[in-house]
Amino acid sequence: MHVLVVGSTRGTGNLVVRALLDRGHGVRAMVRSPEQGSALEERGATAVRGDLEGSLGGVVAGVDAVAFCAGSGSQTGPDATLRVDLHGAVRVIDACVEAGVGRFVLLSSIAADDPMRGSAAIRHYLAAMHARDRILSASGLAATIVRPGGLTHDPGTGEVEVGIPVLGARGSIPRADVAAVMVGCLERDDTIGATFELVSGRTPIGAALDQVASSLS
Amino acid sequence: MHVLVVGSTRGTGNLVVRALLDRGHGVRAMVRSPEQGSALEERGATAVRGDLEGSLGGVVAGVDAVAFCAGSGSQTGPDATLRVDLHGAVRVIDACVEAGVGRFVLLSSIAADDPMRGSAAIRHYLAAMHARDRILSASGLAATIVRPGGLTHDPGTGEVEVGIPVLGARGSIPRADVAAVMVGCLERDDTIGATFELVSGRTPIGAALDQVASSLS
Repeated sequence: MHVLVVGSTRGTGNLVVRALLDRGHGVRAMVRSPEQGSALEERGATAVRGDLEGSLGGVVAGVDAVAFCAGSGSQTGPDATLRVDLHGAVRVIDACVEAGVGRFVLLSSIAADDPMRGSAAIRHYLAAMHARDRILSASGLAATIVRPGGLTHDPGTGEVEVGIPVLGARGSIPRADVAAVMVGCLERDDTIGATFELVSGRTPIGAALDQVASSLS
Repeated sequence: MHVLVVGSTRGTGNLVVRALLDRGHGVRAMVRSPEQGSALEERGATAVRGDLEGSLGGVVAGVDAVAFCAGSGSQTGPDATLRVDLHGAVRVIDACVEAGVGRFVLLSSIAADDPMRGSAAIRHYLAAMHARDRILSASGLAATIVRPGGLTHDPGTGEVEVGIPVLGARGSIPRADVAAVMVGCLERDDTIGATFELVSGRTPIGAALDQVASSLS
């Protein structure tokens, strides 16, 4: 499989790049500058120039799937959330529709189903996640939407808990486990159409994705 | 016709309330506090409590249509754009779907079709407009989306120019003319499904809406 990873230079997206390469997939990593690309290319990915706030170029052309993990992060304001997290995702979704790239796995957030569930401090962020999840769902793409709890830098455990569509409680999860779940979704067409919440738990990732797949049948 | 106006206390929405009442329609005006409601009730509207950032109550139940004109304005930040302009609209759209209220006229913005057309200063705002326009279009409601240029407080002229879906240039328009166009859309089922840009011009509003209607046939 040849996958475009958006948000490839850090966080979960960077771990998705590594997990895809480890499993023998081809990775195209979208970067804003050549410097960002060199570390990814050393690992075996192909870096391509694209900017969620500028020209996307032809970043999606020819890939089999997109893993969208980009976020503007906590160092910028809600205006960047709108421009990057929301509209950047919308533009990549539209580019996929136009280019005929069918498969799209989106990194969202727990409680994105209902931003009113979130605290006042993060409700605006959840509003952006909610809107882009809906726009992806309405796009006609073969989508899977992964909504993890609080992301940690802990090592992955390979064991999670999924809530389809929601969990009964909040929780956290290592980014490495989220990345493994996203790669698992990319490898499994039986997760197409699913939206689920994800935290650390006691179910091996493969079995958790079996639960996701059964929820669709 | 019995219309819920969201964003009824000021700006274009307040003028929509007046125009609807002038034309003999029933108006339910959503307000956050009783004080906001009294001036509207003196004019002949029925004020109902609802908060785009809190409980919507049953504001949409039983109306024939919704005119959504709310915006968080320029005194608050992009976080409010996300919570109010974007997610507040999404919640009202969902409430309409749930309550079986079919008709929805949305006040959007010129260039909302492509936020990258906007200046860096307003691109985040256009991203919110773009997302909510798409979510409305995908909702199944009988929608009309009105995308005016820069809003002025000048008196209405009754003459406009429409771009279906876009105009070739920017421009401005008095809020009163936008309100008249929104009421015209509510009265004309042949504008259902239309999205158009709107600035001041030389075409009487009725003839401009004829152009909008013909674009759909």
